[in-house]
Amino acid sequence: MRRHLASGGGVVTARFERVAIVGTGLIGASLAGAGRARGLFGHTVGVGRWLANLETARARGLVDEVTTDVVAALEGADLIVLATPVATAVSQLADVLRHASGTAVVTDVGSVKAPIVAEASRLGAGRRFVGAHPLAGKAQAGSAAADVDLFRDRIVVLTPSSETISVVLESMKTLWEALDADVRILDAAEHDEVLAASSHLPQMVAYALAAAADQSGLRRRVIELAAGGFRDTTRLATSDAEMWLDIVRLNRAALLDAMEEFSAVWNALRDAVAEGDESAFRRLVAAAQKLRGEVGRS
Amino acid sequence: MRRHLASGGGVVTARFERVAIVGTGLIGASLAGAGRARGLFGHTVGVGRWLANLETARARGLVDEVTTDVVAALEGADLIVLATPVATAVSQLADVLRHASGTAVVTDVGSVKAPIVAEASRLGAGRRFVGAHPLAGKAQAGSAAADVDLFRDRIVVLTPSSETISVVLESMKTLWEALDADVRILDAAEHDEVLAASSHLPQMVAYALAAAADQSGLRRRVIELAAGGFRDTTRLATSDAEMWLDIVRLNRAALLDAMEEFSAVWNALRDAVAEGDESAFRRLVAAAQKLRGEVGRS
Repeated sequence: MRRHLASGGGVVTARFERVAIVGTGLIGASLAGAGRARGLFGHTVGVGRWLANLETARARGLVDEVTTDVVAALEGADLIVLATPVATAVSQLADVLRHASGTAVVTDVGSVKAPIVAEASRLGAGRRFVGAHPLAGKAQAGSAAADVDLFRDRIVVLTPSSETISVVLESMKTLWEALDADVRILDAAEHDEVLAASSHLPQMVAYALAAAADQSGLRRRVIELAAGGFRDTTRLATSDAEMWLDIVRLNRAALLDAMEEFSAVWNALRDAVAEGDESAFRRLVAAAQKLRGEVGRS
Repeated sequence: MRRHLASGGGVVTARFERVAIVGTGLIGASLAGAGRARGLFGHTVGVGRWLANLETARARGLVDEVTTDVVAALEGADLIVLATPVATAVSQLADVLRHASGTAVVTDVGSVKAPIVAEASRLGAGRRFVGAHPLAGKAQAGSAAADVDLFRDRIVVLTPSSETISVVLESMKTLWEALDADVRILDAAEHDEVLAASSHLPQMVAYALAAAADQSGLRRRVIELAAGGFRDTTRLATSDAEMWLDIVRLNRAALLDAMEEFSAVWNALRDAVAEGDESAFRRLVAAAQKLRGEVGRS
Protein backbone atom coordinates (compact mmCIF):
# COMPACT_ATOMS: atom_id res chain seq x y z
CA MET A 1 0.00 0.00 0.00
CA ARG A 2 2.76 2.47 0.80
CA ARG A 3 3.58 2.83 -2.87
CA HIS A 4 -0.04 3.64 -3.76
CA LEU A 5 -0.38 6.13 -0.95
CA ALA A 6 2.82 7.81 -2.03
CA SER A 7 1.90 7.87 -5.69
CA GLY A 8 -1.67 8.82 -4.95
CA GLY A 9 -2.79 6.64 -7.85
CA GLY A 10 -2.44 3.27 -9.50
CA VAL A 11 -4.53 0.21 -8.90
CA VAL A 12 -5.78 -0.14 -5.36
CA THR A 13 -4.90 -3.54 -4.01
CA ALA A 14 -5.45 -5.06 -0.61
CA ARG A 15 -1.88 -6.33 -0.40
CA PHE A 16 0.15 -5.19 2.62
CA GLU A 17 3.76 -6.21 3.13
CA ARG A 18 3.90 -5.99 6.90
CA VAL A 19 0.79 -6.07 9.05
CA ALA A 20 0.68 -5.43 12.78
CA ILE A 21 -2.38 -6.86 14.55
CA VAL A 22 -2.61 -5.25 17.97
CA GLY A 23 -4.76 -7.68 19.98
CA THR A 24 -4.99 -11.25 18.75
CA GLY A 25 -8.39 -12.12 20.15
CA LEU A 26 -11.10 -13.73 18.06
CA ILE A 27 -11.46 -10.86 15.57
CA GLY A 28 -7.81 -9.84 15.35
CA ALA A 29 -6.51 -13.39 14.93
CA SER A 30 -9.26 -14.25 12.44
CA LEU A 31 -8.43 -11.17 10.36
CA ALA A 32 -4.71 -11.97 10.48
CA GLY A 33 -5.29 -15.55 9.40
CA ALA A 34 -7.83 -14.59 6.74
CA GLY A 35 -5.43 -12.09 5.18
CA ARG A 36 -2.55 -14.57 5.25
CA ALA A 37 -4.64 -17.41 3.86
CA ARG A 38 -5.60 -15.27 0.86
CA GLY A 39 -2.09 -13.93 0.24
CA LEU A 40 -3.13 -10.38 1.10
CA PHE A 41 -0.69 -9.96 3.98
CA GLY A 42 3.05 -10.41 3.78
CA HIS A 43 4.72 -10.70 7.17
CA THR A 44 2.10 -10.56 9.92
CA VAL A 45 2.96 -9.71 13.52
CA GLY A 46 0.54 -10.35 16.36
CA VAL A 47 0.90 -8.18 19.46
CA GLY A 48 -0.72 -8.91 22.80
CA ARG A 49 -0.26 -9.19 26.53
CA TRP A 50 -1.03 -12.89 26.87
CA LEU A 51 1.77 -15.12 25.65
CA ALA A 52 -0.37 -18.26 25.65
CA ASN A 53 -2.95 -16.66 23.34
CA LEU A 54 -0.18 -15.27 21.09
CA GLU A 55 1.49 -18.66 20.87
CA THR A 56 -1.80 -20.25 19.93
CA ALA A 57 -2.17 -17.72 17.11
CA ARG A 58 1.31 -18.55 15.83
CA ALA A 59 0.91 -22.29 16.27
CA ARG A 60 -2.32 -22.17 14.26
CA GLY A 61 -0.54 -20.32 11.45
CA LEU A 62 -2.68 -17.19 11.85
CA VAL A 63 0.39 -14.90 12.26
CA ASP A 64 4.06 -15.21 11.31
CA GLU A 65 5.47 -13.66 14.43
CA VAL A 66 4.25 -12.72 17.91
CA THR A 67 5.49 -10.21 20.45
CA THR A 68 4.38 -8.40 23.56
CA ASP A 69 6.31 -5.29 22.40
CA VAL A 70 4.02 -2.94 20.49
CA VAL A 71 6.87 -0.69 19.31
CA ALA A 72 8.74 -3.60 17.73
CA ALA A 73 5.59 -4.83 16.05
CA LEU A 74 4.79 -1.46 14.48
CA GLU A 75 8.26 -1.01 13.00
CA GLY A 76 7.86 -0.92 9.24
CA ALA A 77 4.20 -1.98 9.26
CA ASP A 78 2.18 -0.61 6.32
CA LEU A 79 -1.11 -1.75 7.91
CA ILE A 80 -1.89 -1.49 11.61
CA VAL A 81 -5.07 -3.07 12.95
CA LEU A 82 -6.23 -2.18 16.44
CA ALA A 83 -8.17 -5.23 17.57
CA THR A 84 -8.14 -4.64 21.31
CA PRO A 85 -11.41 -3.97 23.23
CA VAL A 86 -13.00 -0.79 21.92
CA ALA A 87 -12.13 1.57 24.79
CA THR A 88 -8.58 0.19 24.91
CA ALA A 89 -8.18 0.83 21.20
CA VAL A 90 -9.16 4.49 21.63
CA SER A 91 -6.69 4.96 24.46
CA GLN A 92 -3.90 3.14 22.58
CA LEU A 93 -4.20 5.12 19.38
CA ALA A 94 -1.88 7.99 20.38
CA ASP A 95 0.94 5.60 21.32
CA VAL A 96 0.43 3.54 18.21
CA LEU A 97 0.56 6.58 15.93
CA ARG A 98 3.69 7.82 17.71
CA HIS A 99 5.55 4.65 16.76
CA ALA A 100 3.94 3.93 13.41
CA SER A 101 5.36 4.72 10.02
CA GLY A 102 3.95 8.02 8.77
CA THR A 103 2.40 6.30 5.76
CA ALA A 104 0.88 3.26 7.47
CA VAL A 105 -2.84 2.72 7.03
CA VAL A 106 -4.46 2.44 10.48
CA THR A 107 -7.78 0.77 11.20
CA ASP A 108 -9.67 -0.85 14.07
CA VAL A 109 -12.47 -3.39 14.49
CA GLY A 110 -14.45 -1.99 17.44
CA SER A 111 -18.24 -1.88 17.77
CA VAL A 112 -18.43 1.87 18.55
CA LYS A 113 -16.93 4.11 15.91
CA ALA A 114 -17.33 7.84 16.60
CA PRO A 115 -14.84 8.01 19.52
CA ILE A 116 -11.94 6.37 17.69
CA VAL A 117 -12.60 8.27 14.46
CA ALA A 118 -12.59 11.52 16.47
CA GLU A 119 -9.40 10.48 18.28
CA ALA A 120 -7.66 9.73 14.97
CA SER A 121 -8.57 13.20 13.70
CA ARG A 122 -7.51 14.85 16.92
CA LEU A 123 -4.12 13.13 16.60
CA GLY A 124 -3.72 14.36 13.02
CA ALA A 125 -4.12 10.87 11.51
CA GLY A 126 -7.56 11.34 9.99
CA ARG A 127 -6.24 10.97 6.43
CA ARG A 128 -4.98 7.45 6.93
CA PHE A 129 -7.44 6.12 9.49
CA VAL A 130 -10.57 4.15 8.59
CA GLY A 131 -12.74 2.70 11.32
CA ALA A 132 -14.13 -0.77 10.66
CA HIS A 133 -16.76 -2.84 12.43
CA PRO A 134 -17.14 -6.43 11.29
CA LEU A 135 -20.57 -7.70 12.36
CA ALA A 136 -19.13 -11.12 13.09
CA GLY A 137 -18.44 -13.07 16.20
CA LYS A 138 -19.00 -16.27 18.04
CA ALA A 139 -19.51 -17.36 21.61
CA GLN A 140 -15.89 -18.43 22.13
CA ALA A 141 -13.09 -15.90 22.53
CA GLY A 142 -9.38 -15.79 21.79
CA SER A 143 -7.13 -16.96 18.98
CA ALA A 144 -8.08 -20.59 19.70
CA ALA A 145 -11.55 -19.77 18.32
CA ALA A 146 -10.27 -17.76 15.34
CA ASP A 147 -11.61 -18.71 11.93
CA VAL A 148 -10.18 -17.53 8.60
CA ASP A 149 -13.74 -17.59 7.20
CA LEU A 150 -15.27 -15.63 10.09
CA PHE A 151 -16.08 -12.65 7.84
CA ARG A 152 -17.52 -14.57 4.89
CA ASP A 153 -20.95 -13.13 4.00
CA ARG A 154 -20.84 -10.90 7.10
CA ILE A 155 -21.41 -7.18 6.97
CA VAL A 156 -18.37 -5.02 7.67
CA VAL A 157 -19.15 -1.34 8.22
CA LEU A 158 -16.37 1.11 7.30
CA THR A 159 -16.55 4.58 8.83
CA PRO A 160 -14.15 6.95 7.09
CA SER A 161 -14.07 10.57 8.22
CA SER A 162 -14.22 13.54 5.88
CA GLU A 163 -10.42 13.62 6.07
CA THR A 164 -9.80 10.00 5.07
CA ILE A 165 -8.13 9.93 1.68
CA SER A 166 -9.94 7.84 -0.85
CA VAL A 167 -7.11 5.44 -1.65
CA VAL A 168 -6.99 4.45 2.03
CA LEU A 169 -10.74 3.88 2.17
CA GLU A 170 -10.60 1.92 -1.09
CA SER A 171 -7.77 -0.26 0.18
CA MET A 172 -9.79 -1.23 3.26
CA LYS A 173 -12.88 -1.87 1.16
CA THR A 174 -10.83 -4.08 -1.18
CA LEU A 175 -9.30 -5.94 1.77
CA TRP A 176 -12.61 -6.80 3.45
CA GLU A 177 -14.25 -7.70 0.16
CA ALA A 178 -11.35 -10.04 -0.56
CA LEU A 179 -12.30 -11.77 2.71
CA ASP A 180 -15.83 -12.22 1.27
CA ALA A 181 -17.38 -9.62 3.57
CA ASP A 182 -20.28 -7.40 2.54
CA VAL A 183 -18.89 -3.86 2.99
CA ARG A 184 -21.10 -0.87 3.89
CA ILE A 185 -19.79 2.65 4.30
CA LEU A 186 -21.40 4.84 6.95
CA ASP A 187 -20.71 7.98 8.90
CA ALA A 188 -19.34 6.98 12.32
CA ALA A 189 -22.05 8.77 14.30
CA GLU A 190 -24.78 7.21 12.21
CA HIS A 191 -23.18 3.78 12.68
CA ASP A 192 -23.25 4.27 16.44
CA GLU A 193 -26.91 5.32 16.48
CA VAL A 194 -27.95 2.41 14.28
CA LEU A 195 -25.96 -0.12 16.30
CA ALA A 196 -27.45 1.27 19.52
CA ALA A 197 -30.84 0.14 18.18
CA SER A 198 -29.84 -3.01 16.30
CA SER A 199 -27.24 -4.45 18.68
CA HIS A 200 -26.70 -2.59 21.95
CA LEU A 201 -30.43 -2.37 22.81
CA PRO A 202 -31.11 -6.10 22.22
CA GLN A 203 -28.09 -6.83 24.41
CA MET A 204 -29.56 -4.77 27.27
CA VAL A 205 -32.98 -6.39 26.80
CA ALA A 206 -31.47 -9.88 26.95
CA TYR A 207 -29.56 -8.99 30.13
CA ALA A 208 -32.71 -7.59 31.76
CA LEU A 209 -34.86 -10.56 30.75
CA ALA A 210 -32.39 -13.08 32.15
CA ALA A 211 -31.83 -10.99 35.29
CA ALA A 212 -35.59 -10.76 35.85
CA ALA A 213 -35.84 -14.55 35.64
CA ASP A 214 -32.97 -14.78 38.11
CA GLN A 215 -34.94 -12.69 40.62
CA SER A 216 -38.17 -14.60 40.08
CA GLY A 217 -39.74 -16.45 42.97
CA LEU A 218 -40.27 -19.24 40.43
CA ARG A 219 -36.60 -19.23 39.36
CA ARG A 220 -36.06 -22.99 39.60
CA ARG A 221 -39.21 -23.78 37.59
CA VAL A 222 -38.44 -21.09 35.01
CA ILE A 223 -35.08 -22.73 34.37
CA GLU A 224 -36.68 -26.18 34.27
CA LEU A 225 -39.33 -25.15 31.75
CA ALA A 226 -37.32 -22.69 29.65
CA ALA A 227 -37.83 -23.65 26.03
CA GLY A 228 -36.57 -22.39 22.69
CA GLY A 229 -38.20 -18.96 22.91
CA PHE A 230 -36.57 -18.14 26.24
CA ARG A 231 -33.24 -19.46 24.99
CA ASP A 232 -33.33 -17.36 21.82
CA THR A 233 -34.43 -14.20 23.57
CA THR A 234 -31.78 -14.44 26.30
CA ARG A 235 -28.95 -15.95 24.23
CA LEU A 236 -26.99 -12.66 24.33
CA ALA A 237 -27.08 -12.63 28.14
CA THR A 238 -23.92 -14.72 28.38
CA SER A 239 -21.88 -11.94 26.72
CA ASP A 240 -18.98 -10.47 28.63
CA ALA A 241 -19.85 -7.64 31.04
CA GLU A 242 -16.56 -5.75 30.62
CA MET A 243 -16.81 -5.71 26.83
CA TRP A 244 -20.33 -4.33 27.13
CA LEU A 245 -19.37 -1.80 29.79
CA ASP A 246 -16.89 -0.44 27.26
CA ILE A 247 -19.59 -0.15 24.63
CA VAL A 248 -22.02 1.44 27.07
CA ARG A 249 -19.41 4.00 28.12
CA LEU A 250 -18.55 4.93 24.54
CA ASN A 251 -22.08 4.97 23.13
CA ARG A 252 -24.09 6.02 26.17
CA ALA A 253 -26.19 8.79 24.60
CA ALA A 254 -27.33 6.78 21.59
CA LEU A 255 -27.96 3.72 23.75
CA LEU A 256 -30.08 5.71 26.20
CA ASP A 257 -32.14 7.07 23.30
CA ALA A 258 -32.73 3.52 22.06
CA MET A 259 -33.58 2.34 25.58
CA GLU A 260 -36.12 5.15 25.95
CA GLU A 261 -37.71 4.24 22.62
CA PHE A 262 -38.00 0.64 23.79
CA SER A 263 -39.44 1.73 27.16
CA ALA A 264 -42.18 3.71 25.42
CA VAL A 265 -43.21 0.74 23.28
CA TRP A 266 -42.92 -1.65 26.23
CA ASN A 267 -45.14 0.52 28.40
CA ALA A 268 -47.70 0.79 25.60
CA LEU A 269 -47.74 -3.00 25.28
CA ARG A 270 -48.10 -3.46 29.04
CA ASP A 271 -51.01 -1.00 29.04
CA ALA A 272 -52.66 -2.85 26.15
CA VAL A 273 -52.35 -6.12 28.09
CA ALA A 274 -53.56 -4.58 31.35
CA GLU A 275 -56.52 -2.84 29.79
CA GLY A 276 -57.44 -5.60 27.37
CA ASP A 277 -56.99 -3.16 24.49
CA GLU A 278 -56.86 -5.78 21.76
CA SER A 279 -56.68 -3.41 18.83
CA ALA A 280 -53.64 -1.69 20.36
CA PHE A 281 -52.10 -5.13 20.94
CA ARG A 282 -52.76 -6.15 17.33
CA ARG A 283 -51.31 -2.89 15.95
CA LEU A 284 -48.14 -3.33 17.95
CA VAL A 285 -47.76 -6.98 16.93
CA ALA A 286 -48.38 -6.12 13.28
CA ALA A 287 -45.56 -3.54 13.42
CA ALA A 288 -43.26 -6.09 15.06
CA GLN A 289 -44.07 -8.79 12.50
CA LYS A 290 -43.54 -6.41 9.59
CA LEU A 291 -40.15 -5.31 10.87
CA ARG A 292 -39.04 -8.83 11.71
CA GLY A 293 -40.16 -10.08 8.30
CA GLU A 294 -37.88 -7.55 6.63
CA VAL A 295 -34.91 -8.61 8.73
CA GLY A 296 -35.15 -12.15 7.42
CA ARG A 297 -34.29 -15.52 8.88
CA SER A 298 -31.23 -17.28 10.26
CA MET B 1 -58.08 -47.54 28.46
CA ARG B 2 -61.76 -47.97 29.14
CA ARG B 3 -61.11 -51.39 30.62
CA HIS B 4 -58.55 -50.02 33.04
CA LEU B 5 -60.73 -47.13 34.06
CA ALA B 6 -63.61 -49.48 34.66
CA SER B 7 -61.58 -51.99 36.58
CA GLY B 8 -59.67 -49.29 38.41
CA GLY B 9 -56.54 -51.41 38.23
CA GLY B 10 -54.35 -53.49 35.99
CA VAL B 11 -51.34 -52.34 33.99
CA VAL B 12 -51.57 -48.80 32.76
CA THR B 13 -50.90 -48.66 29.04
CA ALA B 14 -50.97 -45.82 26.61
CA ARG B 15 -53.04 -47.76 24.10
CA PHE B 16 -56.35 -46.19 23.02
CA GLU B 17 -58.69 -47.88 20.56
CA ARG B 18 -60.37 -44.82 19.14
CA VAL B 19 -58.82 -41.37 19.40
CA ALA B 20 -60.52 -38.11 18.44
CA ILE B 21 -58.15 -35.24 17.73
CA VAL B 22 -60.16 -32.01 17.76
CA GLY B 23 -58.03 -29.56 15.78
CA THR B 24 -55.46 -31.03 13.41
CA GLY B 25 -52.99 -28.16 13.45
CA LEU B 26 -49.28 -28.66 14.02
CA ILE B 27 -49.62 -30.09 17.55
CA GLY B 28 -52.81 -32.10 17.06
CA ALA B 29 -51.69 -33.69 13.79
CA SER B 30 -48.22 -34.39 15.17
CA LEU B 31 -49.71 -36.10 18.24
CA ALA B 32 -52.09 -38.14 16.09
CA GLY B 33 -49.29 -39.26 13.79
CA ALA B 34 -46.89 -39.94 16.66
CA GLY B 35 -49.45 -42.14 18.45
CA ARG B 36 -50.29 -44.03 15.25
CA ALA B 37 -46.64 -44.49 14.29
CA ARG B 38 -45.91 -46.12 17.65
CA GLY B 39 -49.02 -48.30 17.64
CA LEU B 40 -50.50 -46.50 20.64
CA PHE B 41 -53.65 -45.35 18.84
CA GLY B 42 -56.12 -47.62 17.09
CA HIS B 43 -58.54 -45.77 14.83
CA THR B 44 -57.72 -42.05 14.83
CA VAL B 45 -60.19 -39.40 13.72
CA GLY B 46 -59.14 -35.85 12.97
CA VAL B 47 -61.79 -33.15 13.36
CA GLY B 48 -61.48 -29.64 12.04
CA ARG B 49 -63.12 -26.85 10.13
CA TRP B 50 -60.70 -26.74 7.21
CA LEU B 51 -61.07 -29.60 4.78
CA ALA B 52 -57.78 -28.94 3.02
CA ASN B 53 -55.84 -29.19 6.29
CA LEU B 54 -57.78 -32.34 7.28
CA GLU B 55 -57.10 -33.94 3.92
CA THR B 56 -53.41 -33.18 4.26
CA ALA B 57 -53.43 -34.92 7.66
CA ARG B 58 -55.07 -37.98 6.14
CA ALA B 59 -52.92 -37.99 3.01
CA ARG B 60 -49.81 -37.88 5.20
CA GLY B 61 -51.05 -40.88 7.20
CA LEU B 62 -51.31 -38.91 10.43
CA VAL B 63 -54.98 -39.87 10.96
CA ASP B 64 -57.22 -42.69 9.67
CA GLU B 65 -60.31 -40.63 9.12
CA VAL B 66 -61.25 -36.96 8.95
CA THR B 67 -64.50 -35.13 9.50
CA THR B 68 -65.86 -31.67 10.16
CA ASP B 69 -68.53 -33.17 12.44
CA VAL B 70 -67.38 -33.15 16.05
CA VAL B 71 -70.26 -35.33 17.29
CA ALA B 72 -69.48 -38.10 14.80
CA ALA B 73 -65.80 -37.96 15.70
CA LEU B 74 -66.43 -38.30 19.43
CA GLU B 75 -68.69 -41.35 19.06
CA GLY B 76 -66.99 -44.22 20.85
CA ALA B 77 -63.69 -42.41 21.37
CA ASP B 78 -61.76 -43.51 24.49
CA LEU B 79 -59.31 -40.62 24.17
CA ILE B 80 -60.29 -37.08 23.19
CA VAL B 81 -57.58 -34.50 22.58
CA LEU B 82 -58.56 -30.84 22.33
CA ALA B 83 -55.90 -29.34 20.11
CA THR B 84 -57.68 -26.18 19.04
CA PRO B 85 -56.36 -22.72 20.08
CA VAL B 86 -56.36 -22.44 23.84
CA ALA B 87 -59.41 -20.18 24.29
CA THR B 88 -61.37 -22.21 21.73
CA ALA B 89 -60.57 -25.40 23.62
CA VAL B 90 -62.00 -23.94 26.84
CA SER B 91 -65.19 -22.86 25.12
CA GLN B 92 -65.56 -26.22 23.29
CA LEU B 93 -65.17 -28.38 26.37
CA ALA B 94 -68.85 -28.35 27.43
CA ASP B 95 -70.01 -29.47 23.97
CA VAL B 96 -67.31 -32.09 23.73
CA LEU B 97 -68.19 -33.58 27.12
CA ARG B 98 -71.89 -33.61 26.22
CA HIS B 99 -71.18 -35.90 23.27
CA ALA B 100 -68.29 -37.89 24.65
CA SER B 101 -68.47 -41.36 26.15
CA GLY B 102 -68.70 -41.11 29.92
CA THR B 103 -65.44 -43.03 30.33
CA ALA B 104 -63.34 -41.25 27.72
CA VAL B 105 -60.11 -39.69 28.90
CA VAL B 106 -60.07 -36.02 27.90
CA THR B 107 -56.96 -33.88 27.51
CA ASP B 108 -55.80 -30.74 25.73
CA VAL B 109 -52.48 -29.28 24.54
CA GLY B 110 -52.89 -25.55 25.26
CA SER B 111 -50.27 -23.20 26.69
CA VAL B 112 -52.45 -21.88 29.53
CA LYS B 113 -53.78 -24.53 31.90
CA ALA B 114 -55.78 -23.15 34.84
CA PRO B 115 -58.85 -22.05 32.82
CA ILE B 116 -59.40 -25.39 31.08
CA VAL B 117 -58.71 -27.41 34.25
CA ALA B 118 -61.25 -25.26 36.09
CA GLU B 119 -63.75 -25.63 33.28
CA ALA B 120 -63.39 -29.44 33.34
CA SER B 121 -64.09 -29.44 37.08
CA ARG B 122 -67.01 -27.09 36.70
CA LEU B 123 -68.48 -29.46 34.10
CA GLY B 124 -68.05 -32.43 36.43
CA ALA B 125 -65.30 -34.02 34.33
CA GLY B 126 -62.40 -33.36 36.67
CA ARG B 127 -61.80 -37.07 37.31
CA ARG B 128 -61.03 -37.90 33.71
CA PHE B 129 -59.46 -34.65 32.50
CA VAL B 130 -55.71 -33.99 32.47
CA GLY B 131 -54.35 -30.79 30.98
CA ALA B 132 -51.18 -31.13 28.91
CA HIS B 133 -48.77 -28.57 27.51
CA PRO B 134 -46.11 -29.87 25.16
CA LEU B 135 -43.26 -27.32 25.00
CA ALA B 136 -42.78 -28.03 21.33
CA GLY B 137 -43.43 -26.12 18.17
CA LYS B 138 -42.00 -24.81 14.98
CA ALA B 139 -42.39 -21.75 12.83
CA GLN B 140 -44.73 -23.45 10.34
CA ALA B 141 -48.35 -24.25 11.17
CA GLY B 142 -50.91 -26.84 10.11
CA SER B 143 -50.86 -30.57 9.43
CA ALA B 144 -48.47 -30.03 6.50
CA ALA B 145 -45.79 -29.16 9.08
CA ALA B 146 -46.68 -32.00 11.48
CA ASP B 147 -43.85 -34.24 12.60
CA VAL B 148 -44.25 -37.56 14.38
CA ASP B 149 -41.03 -36.81 16.28
CA LEU B 150 -42.07 -33.30 17.33
CA PHE B 151 -42.20 -34.25 21.01
CA ARG B 152 -38.97 -36.20 21.19
CA ASP B 153 -36.82 -34.86 24.05
CA ARG B 154 -39.30 -32.03 24.61
CA ILE B 155 -40.85 -31.24 27.96
CA VAL B 156 -44.57 -31.97 28.28
CA VAL B 157 -46.19 -30.53 31.39
CA LEU B 158 -49.22 -32.40 32.72
CA THR B 159 -51.57 -30.51 35.04
CA PRO B 160 -53.98 -32.87 36.79
CA SER B 161 -56.43 -31.40 39.28
CA SER B 162 -57.04 -32.79 42.76
CA GLU B 163 -59.98 -34.69 41.25
CA THR B 164 -58.11 -36.42 38.44
CA ILE B 165 -58.00 -40.14 39.12
CA SER B 166 -54.53 -41.57 39.13
CA VAL B 167 -55.03 -44.14 36.37
CA VAL B 168 -56.00 -41.31 34.00
CA LEU B 169 -52.95 -39.27 34.92
CA GLU B 170 -50.73 -42.34 34.59
CA SER B 171 -52.16 -43.17 31.18
CA MET B 172 -51.32 -39.67 29.90
CA LYS B 173 -47.85 -39.84 31.42
CA THR B 174 -47.29 -43.21 29.77
CA LEU B 175 -48.55 -41.90 26.43
CA TRP B 176 -46.28 -38.86 26.32
CA GLU B 177 -43.30 -40.83 27.55
CA ALA B 178 -43.92 -43.35 24.79
CA LEU B 179 -43.53 -40.39 22.39
CA ASP B 180 -40.10 -39.76 23.96
CA ALA B 181 -41.22 -36.61 25.76
CA ASP B 182 -39.86 -35.55 29.15
CA VAL B 183 -42.98 -35.37 31.35
CA ARG B 184 -43.31 -32.97 34.30
CA ILE B 185 -46.36 -32.80 36.55
CA LEU B 186 -47.37 -29.39 37.89
CA ASP B 187 -50.34 -27.66 39.42
CA ALA B 188 -52.14 -25.73 36.66
CA ALA B 189 -51.86 -22.34 38.39
CA GLU B 190 -48.15 -22.84 39.00
CA HIS B 191 -47.68 -23.86 35.36
CA ASP B 192 -49.34 -20.64 34.25
CA GLU B 193 -47.20 -18.46 36.53
CA VAL B 194 -43.99 -20.17 35.41
CA LEU B 195 -44.90 -19.98 31.72
CA ALA B 196 -45.78 -16.29 32.14
CA ALA B 197 -42.13 -15.74 33.07
CA SER B 198 -40.43 -18.34 30.84
CA SER B 199 -42.51 -18.00 27.68
CA HIS B 200 -45.19 -15.30 27.66
CA LEU B 201 -42.86 -12.55 28.94
CA PRO B 202 -40.10 -13.26 26.36
CA GLN B 203 -42.81 -13.19 23.69
CA MET B 204 -43.93 -9.72 24.79
CA VAL B 205 -40.31 -8.51 24.96
CA ALA B 206 -39.62 -9.76 21.43
CA TYR B 207 -42.75 -8.02 20.12
CA ALA B 208 -41.78 -4.75 21.84
CA LEU B 209 -38.18 -4.89 20.61
CA ALA B 210 -39.20 -5.46 17.00
CA ALA B 211 -41.97 -2.85 17.22
CA ALA B 212 -39.49 -0.31 18.65
CA ALA B 213 -37.18 -0.94 15.68
CA ASP B 214 -40.15 -0.50 13.37
CA GLN B 215 -40.77 2.97 14.84
CA SER B 216 -37.13 3.98 14.73
CA GLY B 217 -36.07 6.93 12.62
CA LEU B 218 -33.19 4.69 11.54
CA ARG B 219 -35.50 1.82 10.58
CA ARG B 220 -33.95 1.12 7.17
CA ARG B 221 -30.42 1.05 8.55
CA VAL B 222 -31.44 -1.08 11.54
CA ILE B 223 -32.81 -3.70 9.15
CA GLU B 224 -29.72 -3.44 6.96
CA LEU B 225 -27.31 -3.92 9.86
CA ALA B 226 -29.34 -6.36 11.99
CA ALA B 227 -27.02 -9.22 12.88
CA GLY B 228 -27.37 -12.46 14.80
CA GLY B 229 -28.09 -10.85 18.17
CA PHE B 230 -31.03 -8.87 16.85
CA ARG B 231 -32.34 -11.92 15.01
CA ASP B 232 -32.17 -14.14 18.09
CA THR B 233 -33.74 -11.60 20.40
CA THR B 234 -36.64 -10.84 18.05
CA ARG B 235 -37.15 -14.32 16.56
CA LEU B 236 -40.44 -14.78 18.47
CA ALA B 237 -41.85 -11.57 16.97
CA THR B 238 -43.17 -13.41 13.91
CA SER B 239 -45.56 -15.45 16.10
CA ASP B 240 -49.27 -15.19 15.39
CA ALA B 241 -51.09 -12.29 17.08
CA GLU B 242 -54.39 -14.13 17.56
CA MET B 243 -52.78 -17.12 19.24
CA TRP B 244 -51.01 -14.75 21.61
CA LEU B 245 -54.11 -12.67 22.25
CA ASP B 246 -55.73 -15.91 23.46
CA ILE B 247 -52.85 -16.55 25.82
CA VAL B 248 -52.85 -12.97 27.07
CA ARG B 249 -56.60 -13.12 27.75
CA LEU B 250 -56.34 -16.40 29.65
CA ASN B 251 -53.18 -15.63 31.63
CA ARG B 252 -53.42 -11.88 32.04
CA ALA B 253 -52.76 -11.60 35.77
CA ALA B 254 -49.66 -13.80 35.79
CA LEU B 255 -48.36 -12.14 32.61
CA LEU B 256 -48.82 -8.67 34.08
CA ASP B 257 -46.89 -9.73 37.19
CA ALA B 258 -44.05 -11.00 35.01
CA MET B 259 -44.13 -7.81 32.90
CA GLU B 260 -43.90 -5.69 36.06
CA GLU B 261 -40.93 -7.72 37.29
CA PHE B 262 -39.21 -7.17 33.95
CA SER B 263 -40.04 -3.44 34.03
CA ALA B 264 -38.40 -3.07 37.42
CA VAL B 265 -35.18 -4.76 36.24
CA TRP B 266 -35.23 -2.88 32.96
CA ASN B 267 -35.60 0.48 34.72
CA ALA B 268 -32.75 -0.41 37.06
CA LEU B 269 -30.55 -1.25 34.08
CA ARG B 270 -31.49 1.97 32.31
CA ASP B 271 -30.64 3.94 35.45
CA ALA B 272 -27.29 2.16 35.75
CA VAL B 273 -26.49 3.08 32.13
CA ALA B 274 -27.71 6.67 32.53
CA GLU B 275 -25.82 7.27 35.77
CA GLY B 276 -22.70 5.34 34.83
CA ASP B 277 -23.26 3.10 37.86
CA GLU B 278 -20.88 0.37 36.74
CA SER B 279 -21.16 -1.77 39.85
CA ALA B 280 -24.95 -1.90 39.46
CA PHE B 281 -24.46 -2.79 35.79
CA ARG B 282 -22.01 -5.57 36.69
CA ARG B 283 -24.32 -7.00 39.37
CA LEU B 284 -27.24 -7.13 36.98
CA VAL B 285 -25.13 -8.73 34.23
CA ALA B 286 -23.74 -11.29 36.67
CA ALA B 287 -27.29 -12.29 37.66
CA ALA B 288 -28.27 -12.57 33.99
CA GLN B 289 -25.22 -14.67 33.12
CA LYS B 290 -25.77 -16.99 36.08
CA LEU B 291 -29.40 -17.61 35.15
CA ARG B 292 -28.64 -18.06 31.47
CA GLY B 293 -25.81 -20.45 32.26
CA GLU B 294 -28.22 -22.67 34.16
CA VAL B 295 -30.68 -22.72 31.26
CA GLY B 296 -28.07 -24.21 28.98
CA ARG B 297 -27.45 -24.02 25.27
CA SER B 298 -29.33 -24.83 22.08
